[in-house]
Amino acid sequence: MTKTNPGNFFEDFRLGQKIAHATPRTVTAGDVALYNALYGSRFPVQSSDVFAYAVGYPRAPVDDLLVFHIVFGKTVPDISLNAVANLGYADCRFLHAVYPGDTPTAVSEVIGLKENSSRKTGVVYVRSSGFNQDGTKVLNYVRWVMVRKRDEAAPAPGDLVPQLPQTIDPSTLGSACPQIAVRSYDFALAGSPHRFDAYAVAEKIDHLDGMALEEAEHQLATRLYQNTARVHFNQFAQSKDRFGRRLVYGGVVISLARALSFNGLANAFHIAAINGGRHVAPMFAGATVFAWSEVLAKAELPKRTDVGALRLRTIATKDRPCADFPLKQNEADDPAVILDLDYWVLVPR
Amino acid sequence: MTKTNPGNFFEDFRLGQKIAHATPRTVTAGDVALYNALYGSRFPVQSSDVFAYAVGYPRAPVDDLLVFHIVFGKTVPDISLNAVANLGYADCRFLHAVYPGDTPTAVSEVIGLKENSSRKTGVVYVRSSGFNQDGTKVLNYVRWVMVRKRDEAAPAPGDLVPQLPQTIDPSTLGSACPQIAVRSYDFALAGSPHRFDAYAVAEKIDHLDGMALEEAEHQLATRLYQNTARVHFNQFAQSKDRFGRRLVYGGVVISLARALSFNGLANAFHIAAINGGRHVAPMFAGATVFAWSEVLAKAELPKRTDVGALRLRTIATKDRPCADFPLKQNEADDPAVILDLDYWVLVPR
Amino acid sequence: MTKTNPGNFFEDFRLGQKIAHATPRTVTAGDVALYNALYGSRFPVQSSDVFAYAVGYPRAPVDDLLVFHIVFGKTVPDISLNAVANLGYADCRFLHAVYPGDTPTAVSEVIGLKENSSRKTGVVYVRSSGFNQDGTKVLNYVRWVMVRKRDEAAPAPGDLVPQLPQTIDPSTLGSACPQIAVRSYDFALAGSPHRFDAYAVAEKIDHLDGMALEEAEHQLATRLYQNTARVHFNQFAQSKDRFGRRLVYGGVVISLARALSFNGLANAFHIAAINGGRHVAPMFAGATVFAWSEVLAKAELPKRTDVGALRLRTIATKDRPCADFPLKQNEADDPAVILDLDYWVLVPR
Repeated sequence: MTKTNPGNFFEDFRLGQKIAHATPRTVTAGDVALYNALYGSRFPVQSSDVFAYAVGYPRAPVDDLLVFHIVFGKTVPDISLNAVANLGYADCRFLHAVYPGDTPTAVSEVIGLKENSSRKTGVVYVRSSGFNQDGTKVLNYVRWVMVRKRDEAAPAPGDLVPQLPQTIDPSTLGSACPQIAVRSYDFALAGSPHRFDAYAVAEKIDHLDGMALEEAEHQLATRLYQNTARVHFNQFAQSKDRFGRRLVYGGVVISLARALSFNGLANAFHIAAINGGRHVAPMFAGATVFAWSEVLAKAELPKRTDVGALRLRTIATKDRPCADFPLKQNEADDPAVILDLDYWVLVPR
Repeated sequence: MTKTNPGNFFEDFRLGQKIAHATPRTVTAGDVALYNALYGSRFPVQSSDVFAYAVGYPRAPVDDLLVFHIVFGKTVPDISLNAVANLGYADCRFLHAVYPGDTPTAVSEVIGLKENSSRKTGVVYVRSSGFNQDGTKVLNYVRWVMVRKRDEAAPAPGDLVPQLPQTIDPSTLGSACPQIAVRSYDFALAGSPHRFDAYAVAEKIDHLDGMALEEAEHQLATRLYQNTARVHFNQFAQSKDRFGRRLVYGGVVISLARALSFNGLANAFHIAAINGGRHVAPMFAGATVFAWSEVLAKAELPKRTDVGALRLRTIATKDRPCADFPLKQNEADDPAVILDLDYWVLVPR
Repeated sequence: MTKTNPGNFFEDFRLGQKIAHATPRTVTAGDVALYNALYGSRFPVQSSDVFAYAVGYPRAPVDDLLVFHIVFGKTVPDISLNAVANLGYADCRFLHAVYPGDTPTAVSEVIGLKENSSRKTGVVYVRSSGFNQDGTKVLNYVRWVMVRKRDEAAPAPGDLVPQLPQTIDPSTLGSACPQIAVRSYDFALAGSPHRFDAYAVAEKIDHLDGMALEEAEHQLATRLYQNTARVHFNQFAQSKDRFGRRLVYGGVVISLARALSFNGLANAFHIAAINGGRHVAPMFAGATVFAWSEVLAKAELPKRTDVGALRLRTIATKDRPCADFPLKQNEADDPAVILDLDYWVLVPR
């Protein structure tokens, strides 16, 4: 009897199936330091206990994306070990702040299954949730992945494509963000004077800076999240694959783009939700990542005058500066584009 | 008068000599985070304060191998700075759990000396012990290294090969492991249902996954342990050596193999002892490490029904998957094998 | 209206101008662990809470250079984003110990401005200070950088070269160092028996060891300090530059040299001041760093019999051992020299 986990194949999933994922992990100041060293993030609420306390947090919360990566990492051995491709994210809400000392766990529910016409693979839709040690839900998102079948002849385990929101209603945002004492928010220390009102819909911002990525860096990051997907680590196997190289975990690109976006969005201190995201092209170590953002929408939050929400589209590229705001919407578009992320951030008013 | 430490040469050691090693170091949550980032370890007792507390620890203990590496690192400037080869380990016992905030120190005693027939080198046997800030012994092991003589004409400083146990009596194991509340041990969160009874003597487990290693990674790891052996860091000198490259500290390979072994041994949450270990071939950055294990023996522990002991042999290879369980016992055997480790782990019953 | 920070150009500065820098950041045990992993530092006061407490600190303080790098990093986006060259440091005093949990901020004052004859660039002199969360000044130093002009036709914004001390009066040193209980300072655990009296003026010490540096390592270090200078990270842009490569942040070389200097200066536990420093040649990843030191002077501290001050000159080289104490004073001198640092350390008496 084999004791190793070969991962689930398409026919192993069932609609409504719930999976409690290993491994619970206490997040610490060590994880936060590594996150900073890996991406160079500079948002003051997550950097400084003093700044965070002054504006209304008990102390500096853990970066939203670090929470996302930790929860995501837990789901990999059960959901995507046999994935051909990570197709997309949707309806991702950051529901409660996480602090060093907290111990997130993760649970997923299968909410959709659709066999591909080849019958060799199928798409699995899961809603994954992260919980704190006290049961508080801290994060909730849907992702869908294309997973191999073990046996092509096996019947499809279900046939349902779930309805997913194109964007998250901004009136539901903000539960992970305490009431912000904007008078105590030091805009000089934060690095920018620009508040919610300074941003306009359709405004485009080139984040200017570029960050090269090394193999050691993305491996350190991805292991930190206990993400076990083989494509990120097994160079021996990857050398026989079509790319010949390790693929960078998409979350590393998201975190790099977010850190670069500080230059232009320094006061966008909290990611409240991710409407959707696509990894448009694979990222490999050795390339330099650039990013730009567009303000897609602005929204006030119900009963809150402290912060407003900006809906952003952030595009990341490899080895290509973004002064001319490149996009990839079709195959013929710019091949340097690697990420297309649609999300809501909160900004002081 | 020179103030730099040239390291001890073979004729500098004396039987019975005791050496208190520098540098005491407080282990923190930062070290734990780096350990996770470097190896991707997923054992829940060491990952989660909540899980550890539920099963009987006051909080998550530091990974056994991190403790080993920290103690080992301290011994290097005094014992093995002039080593030609690290020949082996034996009789290594993990005696007391270490927690973040503890400050290990290390002491070694010379228990054997044997000049080689060439008279250019000799083998030094030391028993090294790690102690916590309160004097509690946390770790105890023997290693033997081949050390250069400063002066070939110098007389041998002693002539004794110590008797070492081939294996550690399992009835002496477990002092670093509190009584485990198995009912509170959540096997779903731990990532595997397999308890002590599920493993059979002679069972072989291919751990499947492969992990590539970069120069930056093994350097970060080895510096974290304050291990100063030049072969791991001094590329300028190594470039003139027979390999032309930095050698990876053997402890990095042990930790990678242990982390890989989670896939198949997820509930082997504690290394209680290491019977012996050999670095069969050198490891260099750039290779992908694989591992497999065999259950050599099983043992109950006196007066304990909570956990049982598995004696494991774990083999690590470079750039070679382990589905066919490769070994290197003779020179003609598989050259991809780099580690052959014989140790006792504890598993819930 | 652009929201990104293009950095200040020479004509943007004014004499007497004060700049409060982003981002405040709480230093944690995670930062300390990363610092150790990046450089392999072994000074016991900074490594062990137990050792530090025994000699008179409340617990292990943060390494002086980590404090320097964190404060320096904050100044980069405002001072040196458009720098052509970082020309020098002077009058750097470590005024108060920093502990994990503290939250440094940084402020700079422009104290000198001198346009170059080309009118394309000018030299900006700033005095930068780091403060703890309670307003205590922890660090104070002057640096001068050559900064591009945005518009060559713009008038020079000032014309003043400040008078700077060649060396810091040793009678002013020591405020960051509590009274040391030398009787409780364990020289065996510290790794060397050599006290203040053992060192002689003009004594030269080859630190022997060499440490190779990888791209991932200097990037991790420099991001940890939230230093955003593009030359360290943007390989895409650097590939078009004269070197074709990322430049290593000079502070990384200083920290490597300091860590190497442990071998010969193990009891030089605190950097009290930096008289001056020059990065004599650029450092790139892939090279192995070596170092040697000369004792330039010795001084007693007023009313203190616990510690004395050594004025050291530490030279770092790349891919060149330092047994013959190489220097670069003129262009024709040894091109392997990369750092020439003049500083005061405290040593137990």
